[in-house]
Amino acid sequence: MSINTYEKEFLETLKKISQYEQAINVMYWDMRTGAPKNGEEYRAEAIGQLSADVFQMRTSKRMKELLDHLWEQKDSLPHDTQKAVEEAKKEYDLNSKIPEEEFKEYTTLTSKAESVWEKAKKASDFSLFAPYLEKIIDFKKRFITYWGYEGHPYNALLDLYEPGVTVETLDSLFAELRESIVPLAQKIAASQKKPDTSFVHEHFPKEKQRELCHFFLKELGYDFDAGRLDETVHPFQVTISQGDARVTTAFNESDFRSAVFGTIHECGHAIYEQNIDEALSGTNLSEGASMGIHESQSLFYENFIGRHQGFWKRYFHKMKESCPEQFEGVTADGFYRAVNESKPSLIRIDADELTYPLHIMIRYEIEKAIFSGEVAVEDLPKLWDEKYEAYLGVTPPDDAKGILQDVHWSGGDFGYFPSYALGYMYAAQLKSSMLNDLPEFDRLIENGDFQPIRQWLTDHVHVHGKRKKPLEMIKSATGEELNVRYLIRYLEDKYTSLYL
Amino acid sequence: MSINTYEKEFLETLKKISQYEQAINVMYWDMRTGAPKNGEEYRAEAIGQLSADVFQMRTSKRMKELLDHLWEQKDSLPHDTQKAVEEAKKEYDLNSKIPEEEFKEYTTLTSKAESVWEKAKKASDFSLFAPYLEKIIDFKKRFITYWGYEGHPYNALLDLYEPGVTVETLDSLFAELRESIVPLAQKIAASQKKPDTSFVHEHFPKEKQRELCHFFLKELGYDFDAGRLDETVHPFQVTISQGDARVTTAFNESDFRSAVFGTIHECGHAIYEQNIDEALSGTNLSEGASMGIHESQSLFYENFIGRHQGFWKRYFHKMKESCPEQFEGVTADGFYRAVNESKPSLIRIDADELTYPLHIMIRYEIEKAIFSGEVAVEDLPKLWDEKYEAYLGVTPPDDAKGILQDVHWSGGDFGYFPSYALGYMYAAQLKSSMLNDLPEFDRLIENGDFQPIRQWLTDHVHVHGKRKKPLEMIKSATGEELNVRYLIRYLEDKYTSLYL
Repeated sequence: MSINTYEKEFLETLKKISQYEQAINVMYWDMRTGAPKNGEEYRAEAIGQLSADVFQMRTSKRMKELLDHLWEQKDSLPHDTQKAVEEAKKEYDLNSKIPEEEFKEYTTLTSKAESVWEKAKKASDFSLFAPYLEKIIDFKKRFITYWGYEGHPYNALLDLYEPGVTVETLDSLFAELRESIVPLAQKIAASQKKPDTSFVHEHFPKEKQRELCHFFLKELGYDFDAGRLDETVHPFQVTISQGDARVTTAFNESDFRSAVFGTIHECGHAIYEQNIDEALSGTNLSEGASMGIHESQSLFYENFIGRHQGFWKRYFHKMKESCPEQFEGVTADGFYRAVNESKPSLIRIDADELTYPLHIMIRYEIEKAIFSGEVAVEDLPKLWDEKYEAYLGVTPPDDAKGILQDVHWSGGDFGYFPSYALGYMYAAQLKSSMLNDLPEFDRLIENGDFQPIRQWLTDHVHVHGKRKKPLEMIKSATGEELNVRYLIRYLEDKYTSLYL
Repeated sequence: MSINTYEKEFLETLKKISQYEQAINVMYWDMRTGAPKNGEEYRAEAIGQLSADVFQMRTSKRMKELLDHLWEQKDSLPHDTQKAVEEAKKEYDLNSKIPEEEFKEYTTLTSKAESVWEKAKKASDFSLFAPYLEKIIDFKKRFITYWGYEGHPYNALLDLYEPGVTVETLDSLFAELRESIVPLAQKIAASQKKPDTSFVHEHFPKEKQRELCHFFLKELGYDFDAGRLDETVHPFQVTISQGDARVTTAFNESDFRSAVFGTIHECGHAIYEQNIDEALSGTNLSEGASMGIHESQSLFYENFIGRHQGFWKRYFHKMKESCPEQFEGVTADGFYRAVNESKPSLIRIDADELTYPLHIMIRYEIEKAIFSGEVAVEDLPKLWDEKYEAYLGVTPPDDAKGILQDVHWSGGDFGYFPSYALGYMYAAQLKSSMLNDLPEFDRLIENGDFQPIRQWLTDHVHVHGKRKKPLEMIKSATGEELNVRYLIRYLEDKYTSLYL
């Protein structure tokens, strides 16, 4: 068998996997956007079967043979194949190092744990969830030893979502960020200059919101020939295949902000996916570089464009046309201030862009403590509350609004949270670099001329898919290592002008 | 390996196949109800891959071993497993008797032929399609010899769609039917008593039609917890899984009839699927007994309920409420007459229930002549036109409105058309039998009390899934062999009272 035959079979397997994933993603999207409830159980089973088949293809003996052969002669492979082999090998190693029986037990545990977490959250009682969390943590600790790690054991988990990012990196980035934004948030909380947000909770009909979401997606350059917008309960972006990157949104009739900014956020994810090099289609490189890089694109659209003063100078009249009574007496500038309100809060997903990173730091520090064995599960709620008090000056009244608020741990997704904060840092650094090429950035937004911005992001980020690792991507896009100063400067400038 | 182990593995394979079919069906439904166009090519490839995998599971060496073992000890298997084995064996034989290379060529040919047919239809030029049709027929003739047959070679094709139905049966049924409805249709064409249909083509807004379709589905007992309604171009009903039987419809704003009666038609298919015994779920018996039995259910809903005089006595006011201007001066009775208009026409899918079987007979006779070698492809348009003249008294002005109107032949679907006419016969015989149990049938419809009717059809047809063959189903439901007199009597009664 020549190397080309191995390469061919390897790429064919990746393609088959991508087709199975297409099926899984359509089934998932459908389940979350209107599939009838009586079919749910059968749907979950079918998704389970196809996922198991994908797992099998990724970890088969034949895959190992292919990877071994290709790895030996990696240097003679085309560049994209090399990267695809690296990616597939990483996946293979992660999955094959865990004993099959143990992985099955873990999968069963996490699928049960999610509904236990739901019940515990409803009852606002951490003790119901604690035994499950404890077992999940035990599994994860064992997985970490199977996988191996350098430095802190938590590095093994970080690497799952943000390859190359370590505790050492994050400790230093977060320390710097914390030093700036904790005092800034405190000054804002004490400031007398508060925006008037009374109008945001007036009734805004769903159909009007839907029209607006379509309008903004079109304006921002989302390609409706390569996607669609649907309603759901917990919004997400899902890529079905090349040429099909969908967005979903939820409509809250007493707060238009969730649909408007939620849609712009998912739009950022989707525009990323719509602009990945088509040459990567059907391979494991036809996706975002990492969770954090993906989040940088959604945050760029949501915050740097969607919460930009110029954006609402241009588009506030659209809001007014949709609901004239709601916005009577509100100016474009007043609207801009209201949708940029900042205040310390208990719930991460409702947080504004200034205080959001603090919610992430709290989770990061707690997860790190869990995996270095510094905290017991039973002590987590206390630790959680102390950190909220210290960083945000608020104290959760109960577990539901505290430690039980996020679903992630019930699925074993430790190491995931930091990517959200990294997304902010990546986005700010990219924007700073973009300003060198597009010094007229503010004017472009005010004119609704998003094409040059989109093109810059496509050239520097989107097109590369998963060819580059996140920190490598930032380095090549901005000419500099990851630097948290760009985010700090952005937040200081914006919130000083808004509040101080 | 004990028989139970074989049975277990066999049933697990059927379940896996059903899960793959679920994925294929969701992908298909999505493609036809709003998937973005840039993903179409990738979607077709993914459906192709999963379909190939299903084919492989059905025809694998392992499947043969399982079937051989189970077949030997068939009598000791549970009843449903016996039936499932018979069904799987039939499928296996059909597919495995054709040399693989030949089957691949055939698949490639038919997938090309559909777009050639489309172009030929657009250009109204049969000669463009003829070379493809010729090749498809050659393949089918060879397949017939591989499969084997008794009596007429066309029997092998009929058996694909309506197992147990033969040329001998159809010749006699169609002769009897023709003798009654040709003169009846002629009398109607000559009758002076014509319904006023002028109002049907007035503008009827799509959203109003959508609301009405939802309303009628609910009234008729379609379960929205186990299905949904969506818009498409060519309406269809698709079952995704147990608990998920979807309907689609097309809205024509200058003819509300296509959406209203189309939806009621698909509702009949869907109610069938929603009421198949859940115990059959995940097996190859969890579907309709045959094409014709399925059609009997859609026709029952469309014609015996949806075009019933009592139905419009009850619901005409809903139409009027939707579009008051359109129906000004129209009475419930006038409406009933208009939606039961009968006149000879060129296009099968636009035909009324009286003349529809004549369109089918024409196709049946032509297909039979093709497979007995009595007609050459080049002579088909002439034969087509002669038969339309003889049976319906109309002459196609061109190929598009004549021999090129149906897609079926481009996909090699010979033997399929007779099922449509059988569906009418089955439906009429079922109704006659139902009247013995529910003599108040007309009153039930006038009262909108469809539950007893639905229950009767569920008990006698739906629940059995594919446990019975079509003629066996009719026999056990009605106590009698298939008899075309019921359809003839129904048509004579209804159309005499309407026109004569």
